[in-house]
Amino acid sequence: MVKKYEFETIVNHVRQTGFVFQGSEIYGGLANTWDFGPLGIELKENVKKLWWQSFVSRNPYNVGIQSAILMNPSVWKASGHLDTFNDPLMDCRQCKTRHRADKLIEEFSGNTVNAGVMTNEEMESYIAEHKIPCPNCGGHDFTSIRQFNLMFKTFQGVTEDNTNAIYLRPETAQGMFVNYRNVQRTMRKKLPFGIAQIGKSFRNEITPGQFIFRTREFEQMELEFFVKPGEDLKWYEYWKDFAMNWLIDLGIDSENLILREHDAEELSHYSTGTSDIEYRFPWGFDELWGIADRTDYDLKQHQIHSKVNMEYLDPETNEKYIPYCVEPSLGVERLMLALICEAYDEEELENDSRIVMRFAPKVAPVQVCILPLSKKLSDKGQEVLGEFMGEFACDYDESGSIGKRYRRQDAIGTPFVITVDFDSLEDNTVTLRYRDSMEQVRVTIEEAKDIITKAING
Amino acid sequence: MVKKYEFETIVNHVRQTGFVFQGSEIYGGLANTWDFGPLGIELKENVKKLWWQSFVSRNPYNVGIQSAILMNPSVWKASGHLDTFNDPLMDCRQCKTRHRADKLIEEFSGNTVNAGVMTNEEMESYIAEHKIPCPNCGGHDFTSIRQFNLMFKTFQGVTEDNTNAIYLRPETAQGMFVNYRNVQRTMRKKLPFGIAQIGKSFRNEITPGQFIFRTREFEQMELEFFVKPGEDLKWYEYWKDFAMNWLIDLGIDSENLILREHDAEELSHYSTGTSDIEYRFPWGFDELWGIADRTDYDLKQHQIHSKVNMEYLDPETNEKYIPYCVEPSLGVERLMLALICEAYDEEELENDSRIVMRFAPKVAPVQVCILPLSKKLSDKGQEVLGEFMGEFACDYDESGSIGKRYRRQDAIGTPFVITVDFDSLEDNTVTLRYRDSMEQVRVTIEEAKDIITKAING
Repeated sequence: MVKKYEFETIVNHVRQTGFVFQGSEIYGGLANTWDFGPLGIELKENVKKLWWQSFVSRNPYNVGIQSAILMNPSVWKASGHLDTFNDPLMDCRQCKTRHRADKLIEEFSGNTVNAGVMTNEEMESYIAEHKIPCPNCGGHDFTSIRQFNLMFKTFQGVTEDNTNAIYLRPETAQGMFVNYRNVQRTMRKKLPFGIAQIGKSFRNEITPGQFIFRTREFEQMELEFFVKPGEDLKWYEYWKDFAMNWLIDLGIDSENLILREHDAEELSHYSTGTSDIEYRFPWGFDELWGIADRTDYDLKQHQIHSKVNMEYLDPETNEKYIPYCVEPSLGVERLMLALICEAYDEEELENDSRIVMRFAPKVAPVQVCILPLSKKLSDKGQEVLGEFMGEFACDYDESGSIGKRYRRQDAIGTPFVITVDFDSLEDNTVTLRYRDSMEQVRVTIEEAKDIITKAING
Repeated sequence: MVKKYEFETIVNHVRQTGFVFQGSEIYGGLANTWDFGPLGIELKENVKKLWWQSFVSRNPYNVGIQSAILMNPSVWKASGHLDTFNDPLMDCRQCKTRHRADKLIEEFSGNTVNAGVMTNEEMESYIAEHKIPCPNCGGHDFTSIRQFNLMFKTFQGVTEDNTNAIYLRPETAQGMFVNYRNVQRTMRKKLPFGIAQIGKSFRNEITPGQFIFRTREFEQMELEFFVKPGEDLKWYEYWKDFAMNWLIDLGIDSENLILREHDAEELSHYSTGTSDIEYRFPWGFDELWGIADRTDYDLKQHQIHSKVNMEYLDPETNEKYIPYCVEPSLGVERLMLALICEAYDEEELENDSRIVMRFAPKVAPVQVCILPLSKKLSDKGQEVLGEFMGEFACDYDESGSIGKRYRRQDAIGTPFVITVDFDSLEDNTVTLRYRDSMEQVRVTIEEAKDIITKAING
């Protein structure tokens, strides 16, 4: 279903309810950093757990790793990040503000021009010809473009000189490439097989923004899937389908997803196919998941730079070759934001209205909340809580009217609420309330568990 | 049981079997960074999951958060890290090597002197008086001590000047302190309650070492537990017991754990009690888990520096006060290393010998491995695998003799192996083998599941 709530409305809601806080808020924040509160971290961990299940634990091909954030700088030389992972920046000489040339052009043209494929000279000419003004002061006096590397640099050891310079990784993917041989050997893997990782990456973006959509510090879920050359396009199709189905299974309506194949001019020189799965964010369709056929580019680069042989000996044909690689790459926070936007809803009721987050039960931060009808029922409430706690993500609330407590759980997306009343003391039955329909049914505790388990696994 | 295997033997074993690889290995590594392979990451995630269950999901007091690694530098001013989180370094003028003064003294004295409580002047005098030589060249010409801050510095934005300097967090704890009010308010929490976090921290140690025991990049599991002043010592005792019992429940023998209370001179000026739970590593007892009564020091410091009121209004007494805080702080990799050392065993058998990792079933990277007796049984083997995959961490192996496959699973600590044979085709029974006793029993698939489930939960 296509909904149309203001992005700001959604952001305010999740900031007020314990999903996301501004990073270092009591010190006025730190530009574009966000902290995940008690509900946000549960949502985030659910997303990561479900990805890991589908891509690693229950996947017949793949295994996981966790590589260090700090890597030998030679890795970034080989991958090309040291030389080409740059933003084109220009300064306004009048007001001294700094801007990304490509963004100036794209905003000026209303996104009809793709500046990502232009050279610096082409961008400078375009800006001059179209008299694009400084967004801050309106002036027309820009410096020429300077390339600014997006990797955060730090220094290991006691001196801050460039022999000690290391970088915070800008992607997790290189961790899989440098460990390709270690994993293949120790796990005795045969092609096709994949190496997956979830972990933090860092990019010193000049213009981050849109809440948690683009941040300098973010978490990625990446798979590098190694295949026999020639079979790459087949697997590229496979992972595009797999990714799309996985999102739908997570509760995203297919109407809000599109698959956009990159044009020839957008493709990296080494890629024979790249697609973005885009989600209909409140500001329009925007990138959620990139799937790329990276050929043998990465392993070949590492073979050249490290002198380590990356060839695979095919046990069936006795051929030796460097595997090709297909990469589905997804940002955790970006997916969380899509799930939040997808879930947010406002509903007019007969004599009331409510905000309801319609999370799929398997991703909801709280899956079931126990409410004793009266404080006198605390003991029974705690007993029932104990029954559910081992199996589900639980909350417990005994303050305020029942109606108010229902609204609170609706607002954070709890799919099931169990009310314990005085009859529960007698017959051990409870009232189970469904978030979306607000329907209530009288069930035994075992029946309630069955209903919730089915909803989570279904 | 006290075992006595060489540390190097254990390290070699886990490096060869897919638990841990050297970071950036193909480029000669990066000093003291390690990557977790397919088995290591499963062990690590199990440890984190079990901690989160005990300290958050199934805990009546606590909630979780995830704060950003990059924080406003004012946080580190308030916490004291900018001014006092230093190592005392001296250079040898003869050979130009750099050393930690405290380590020179402790090693020279055979750990009979605690240099951690000495001033720079006292350390310089001690080194001069005792004529401690340079460990590299034997010379006696040291510079005076210079304080070296252990935080990794980087720069956010386009210029590398100190107005843009930010730091990689050296602990997760400050994330809980700066979010104390946000969490208390949005979750409507009453004292006592705790805020927990699992996440990466970074310390630019001059002398890291002992494999994954002390690394520059590491993961912490920290709880900040807020209480009414005066109730802190009671809760300090509570969390010491809780932590100790949790370790034993994870499969660590209590004989290999001691609780060491810090002396008055070791205590931070703000702490009224600090203990270390130490584990008997192959090199001797060493720190595993620190539990500290931090009083109201941290919240008070943040109140002073941020001007945000950190007082709690006690709903029972209407008093206002800054809560006290008890902190159990545990390193993930350090706990993994303890579990690895605890699990490693070599055993002489009748006509054979084996390496066996005796992990508790709930932490084992692979919980059950399915072995078809013959390749002709692949289909049945895959069918059985499908039955177990949704519930347990599974592996599948059909190459080599059964004996060889048993040894492989022993070596990675798989507690249960299921063998599928030709009888399985007829009556759907399988052979279940226990790792520790090597006993084998003929059971149905349902019986096997029950046995494994009980072992994991027990």
